[in-house]
Amino acid sequence: MISVGIVGGTGYTGVELLRILLRHPDVTVTTLTSRTEAGKPIANLFPSLRGQTELTFSDLDIEELKQCDVVFFATPHGVAMKHAEALVAANTKVIDLAADFRIQNLDVFEKWYGLKHTCPELLQQSVYGLSELRREQIKHASVVGNPGCYPTTVQLGLAPLLQQAGLIVPERILIDAKSGVSGAGRKAELSLVYSENADNFKAYGVAGHRHHPEIVEALGVIAADTTASFDNIIFVPHLVPMIRGMLSTIYVDLTDKGAALDIQALYEMFYADEYFVDVMPQGSVPDTRSVRGSNMLRMSLTKIQPNKLVIVVVQDNLVKGAAGQAVQNMNIMCGLSENLGLTGIALLP
Amino acid sequence: MISVGIVGGTGYTGVELLRILLRHPDVTVTTLTSRTEAGKPIANLFPSLRGQTELTFSDLDIEELKQCDVVFFATPHGVAMKHAEALVAANTKVIDLAADFRIQNLDVFEKWYGLKHTCPELLQQSVYGLSELRREQIKHASVVGNPGCYPTTVQLGLAPLLQQAGLIVPERILIDAKSGVSGAGRKAELSLVYSENADNFKAYGVAGHRHHPEIVEALGVIAADTTASFDNIIFVPHLVPMIRGMLSTIYVDLTDKGAALDIQALYEMFYADEYFVDVMPQGSVPDTRSVRGSNMLRMSLTKIQPNKLVIVVVQDNLVKGAAGQAVQNMNIMCGLSENLGLTGIALLP
Amino acid sequence: MISVGIVGGTGYTGVELLRILLRHPDVTVTTLTSRTEAGKPIANLFPSLRGQTELTFSDLDIEELKQCDVVFFATPHGVAMKHAEALVAANTKVIDLAADFRIQNLDVFEKWYGLKHTCPELLQQSVYGLSELRREQIKHASVVGNPGCYPTTVQLGLAPLLQQAGLIVPERILIDAKSGVSGAGRKAELSLVYSENADNFKAYGVAGHRHHPEIVEALGVIAADTTASFDNIIFVPHLVPMIRGMLSTIYVDLTDKGAALDIQALYEMFYADEYFVDVMPQGSVPDTRSVRGSNMLRMSLTKIQPNKLVIVVVQDNLVKGAAGQAVQNMNIMCGLSENLGLTGIALLP
Amino acid sequence: MISVGIVGGTGYTGVELLRILLRHPDVTVTTLTSRTEAGKPIANLFPSLRGQTELTFSDLDIEELKQCDVVFFATPHGVAMKHAEALVAANTKVIDLAADFRIQNLDVFEKWYGLKHTCPELLQQSVYGLSELRREQIKHASVVGNPGCYPTTVQLGLAPLLQQAGLIVPERILIDAKSGVSGAGRKAELSLVYSENADNFKAYGVAGHRHHPEIVEALGVIAADTTASFDNIIFVPHLVPMIRGMLSTIYVDLTDKGAALDIQALYEMFYADEYFVDVMPQGSVPDTRSVRGSNMLRMSLTKIQPNKLVIVVVQDNLVKGAAGQAVQNMNIMCGLSENLGLTGIALLP
Repeated sequence: MISVGIVGGTGYTGVELLRILLRHPDVTVTTLTSRTEAGKPIANLFPSLRGQTELTFSDLDIEELKQCDVVFFATPHGVAMKHAEALVAANTKVIDLAADFRIQNLDVFEKWYGLKHTCPELLQQSVYGLSELRREQIKHASVVGNPGCYPTTVQLGLAPLLQQAGLIVPERILIDAKSGVSGAGRKAELSLVYSENADNFKAYGVAGHRHHPEIVEALGVIAADTTASFDNIIFVPHLVPMIRGMLSTIYVDLTDKGAALDIQALYEMFYADEYFVDVMPQGSVPDTRSVRGSNMLRMSLTKIQPNKLVIVVVQDNLVKGAAGQAVQNMNIMCGLSENLGLTGIALLP
Repeated sequence: MISVGIVGGTGYTGVELLRILLRHPDVTVTTLTSRTEAGKPIANLFPSLRGQTELTFSDLDIEELKQCDVVFFATPHGVAMKHAEALVAANTKVIDLAADFRIQNLDVFEKWYGLKHTCPELLQQSVYGLSELRREQIKHASVVGNPGCYPTTVQLGLAPLLQQAGLIVPERILIDAKSGVSGAGRKAELSLVYSENADNFKAYGVAGHRHHPEIVEALGVIAADTTASFDNIIFVPHLVPMIRGMLSTIYVDLTDKGAALDIQALYEMFYADEYFVDVMPQGSVPDTRSVRGSNMLRMSLTKIQPNKLVIVVVQDNLVKGAAGQAVQNMNIMCGLSENLGLTGIALLP
Repeated sequence: MISVGIVGGTGYTGVELLRILLRHPDVTVTTLTSRTEAGKPIANLFPSLRGQTELTFSDLDIEELKQCDVVFFATPHGVAMKHAEALVAANTKVIDLAADFRIQNLDVFEKWYGLKHTCPELLQQSVYGLSELRREQIKHASVVGNPGCYPTTVQLGLAPLLQQAGLIVPERILIDAKSGVSGAGRKAELSLVYSENADNFKAYGVAGHRHHPEIVEALGVIAADTTASFDNIIFVPHLVPMIRGMLSTIYVDLTDKGAALDIQALYEMFYADEYFVDVMPQGSVPDTRSVRGSNMLRMSLTKIQPNKLVIVVVQDNLVKGAAGQAVQNMNIMCGLSENLGLTGIALLP
Repeated sequence: MISVGIVGGTGYTGVELLRILLRHPDVTVTTLTSRTEAGKPIANLFPSLRGQTELTFSDLDIEELKQCDVVFFATPHGVAMKHAEALVAANTKVIDLAADFRIQNLDVFEKWYGLKHTCPELLQQSVYGLSELRREQIKHASVVGNPGCYPTTVQLGLAPLLQQAGLIVPERILIDAKSGVSGAGRKAELSLVYSENADNFKAYGVAGHRHHPEIVEALGVIAADTTASFDNIIFVPHLVPMIRGMLSTIYVDLTDKGAALDIQALYEMFYADEYFVDVMPQGSVPDTRSVRGSNMLRMSLTKIQPNKLVIVVVQDNLVKGAAGQAVQNMNIMCGLSENLGLTGIALLP
């Protein structure tokens, strides 16, 4: 059994980690921390967990965490980087669901997160945890930076077209993305209140969003063409009145070489062996409820003009976009079957 | 023109008052106060008001408010009672949308609201503003306590049966009430967050709710039988994942005398001249959307056993349950046509 | 492995059965029928099942169904009773999710469902599948009538008080029930359309609902006091703008004997060994999301007057209220561990 | 008083027309037709209209309609063109809310709507009713084709940039559009059912949507550069789990000439005198609720790169996107003040 600690269990990614890990056949969650709720059983906060666990929040105790095989940080940005070195030194693997280990460029990180990185060397050794695309490095990683939710959809949506040079025009990629409200976290903020969000739709972060630089850096790593620049891709997120679910509509300019390819076949082949990636049949498009509560990511490919492709990608932002992919990474790091504990079918309706 | 001041314009009842009053043909809103937003145009907070008003929040200035003909308090409980005497002395009429002037029994008020009443004499002279049932007193009132949202549905739902003695068993009245989330106000609280309320339903205040004593006192006033006691009526509210709307299901035990009556005819006659009360035809029941955004209250009467009656009452909690009825009261107090500015049709769908 | 057939897989209970059974360790679904979709893969209808099953709808073939160990009917009322005898004769167990085997009184059944029962003898031998309350009979049953969703909440909510005579006043039970829209099924009806139900709340079936006679009959069976009559209990359902979830608020008049008891302790003891029933701690009430997607049913007990008790019960109408309890019954009938395949944790948020 | 007839009053645009016209000071609705509901009071279908009108559905009687000053067609595509000539001959003005008079190119119309146009000459004389952009022609029109909802947002969002040549790259316009579910109409279709749409988000019509050719033709008329081609603009609509509201995110490539302009000032000036168009201040973006139930259309302009502009446009799809603009056109055609009956403030929250 793998012993697991969770730092910061009061947010939505925390409770989602528990929903998955409490049913994972090879895992025991031994420690659960919270600054604000120490001493309280987690089931008091989340009645869905009543009867499922006796876990009680404790203060963060680094010595206790060192006893764990794996520690997940479901905390605000900046917490994991304070504790990661001590844990790694104790041979404890670290998976951060915040942004501390997502971006290698320190200036970019500081600019967008307003934080000075406290362990840049460990950051360099850490692995960006897009499971399907960095599986080999994740296997040997001590620290994994779990990807942002939007960047997960974009990378998996574009990878087949980027792993050959010259198929698309990189600087013309445009991503119009939409997310359910749970992506904003569990916080007492006026902007998150029910009556402000229900029966309403809006764009946000139009002038700039933290996931833009993460996408730019990550696509650069994926791209076979090492000279390609993604700095000018466009990314505009929107907020949908639903709890869970994320859909990215990705618009791509194909080169003539790309236009000549059978894109559908390219994607189907690329993802043929992936349990969690589903390329929908031509003519269909995925909806977010088809993945609600599951770790699946589905996508469709529609050529609307000879050189124009629309890729629609959906996932559950809290599962494949956060806690699910984190557990998928844990499975890879621990040498387990990659889908262990993650085979639940989406809740529909 | 009637000059109006609004104290506390940052909540949902505040913006709803403005939505109505800015289109009221005989009103000018001259003053709008907020402790936290002074200096800011209200349209910055509520983009629905862009282009509709130049009003800017100011600090509460009692001298300025005294210039108004009518002042509405759309504030937390306990604010209106601090300023009402000064305003009344200056001949300014006061309409409080909070609870300061709803309950005559001071002990009950203190127990449920945790506040010592600061102007008990003025409270005694004030009128409880259930427009249809206290019209004559409201006409001559200086201070009106606008009813709570739930109590409005209950009083109008029961009045025809209470204004004759001996038709029902008072102590057996049972009210199972349901409200949209906007009733909880515009506050940065975790319990109000979208992802905590969407696709969810719950009871609250089961062990006791502030509107219970208000209902008990008000029904006592309505009842023809002055010996009737309503202390043991049951009232349990629930929270519905919708923004606006309130539905009360009221269960009544009819006496044999009551059972012998044509209840449908009784209600239709009782409300025949009321613009804002709609008795639905036998066999139908109202839904909340039929009154969304309007000042209408609709009800249906279904006898399910010879001595058992189910009354279903709906209203928009922010209109007839709050701001709309407040304006209706203003119209009565100022000698205007009662439905002036309040004839908008419900938004359906 | 148990081989399972599902008749009528195009509705919400059908797809929910599959969500559960495709992950059940001891089950293989071998047959899936639909009159209208024969020949189509089920994953075409429900993209959530893509990659999870190769099952294709077929026409109902009784010979094929006879090969199954268990057949579920997720069909309209009246279908299961046509085929049950043939299946039972072939030693195939039958679980009907419709009403064919819920009500023993044939006149009552005909009155409320407009159908003449075609196998009254088999009906007599069939068992009403409220798992927790009829476990021993279910073990030996050939045919189980899976309970209605509302009746499940009511029976489990009242059983501890009924299994001793004289604790409550039976004829004064009042149930104000609320359900998500999926309870109405997957049908192309105007009344079910999104824009007719979203941001809306209403009562329905006020003058009478099919689940009333089912509740009356079932409570009569549970009650220790065999002279108790439940004919006059009140049951009024409402429709909540959410997909899944059901909450029943049950109002009970305690006798003096009942009022003297520690009700909380009574319930906790009664359900101490039940995996799927959770008695919430005093002072709390359950919300529907705490059981979303799970087979749990949670309840709370609040004494609001010395002789008045409010019981709040929640479940997911499609799981414990339908497909989940059906699988629970299958587990019991087949001698499996009762919670096999049913331990998934609720999806929150 | 203007006498108005409405053909097809059972859909959402029909009831929305009535919500507006029953409060219009210069209008009397005299006739209301429906094939399926003839003889029934409209208030039976739409309880929001109870007490507001005695109107009863009648069969379509062309002689009766000829008595009207204005007839609105709130019917499926293909109905208005059958009756328009007779009405025009009788001096009755026609406003069609369907597509019969939106597209001048007959081949395009037939291809997308599957209908042969029955009065191509009248079509040529008809005016496309984008009120703000074709006001002068509308004044003198006998027949107005009310624009599609999406095209309204796109044209008003782009007009200021198109009325000078050379500011943008026409063929690179990309519109990612999102609509509430009411846009699909009031129909008994499975795809519109609550449980299929709530808590869900999807793209639709990715491979092609009827509003694309309408947008292409209409932008061609607006554009100062008569050689500009809009054939290759991209338009992808999405469905949002909300009743009302539409948001279009429009991505534009600015030329160097366009990039050198103060776009914000350009738009503010262009719309300075428009009552129903609101250019939001720089740095803000509009949300759909800010226009819920009102005839306002709001937009924001965000330059995200020197040559890249993001225009976000919102409207209520049933008001400015349908019934509201239709009444606005009626006001123009009848020489009334353009905002008469249309000054209601949005319902927020």
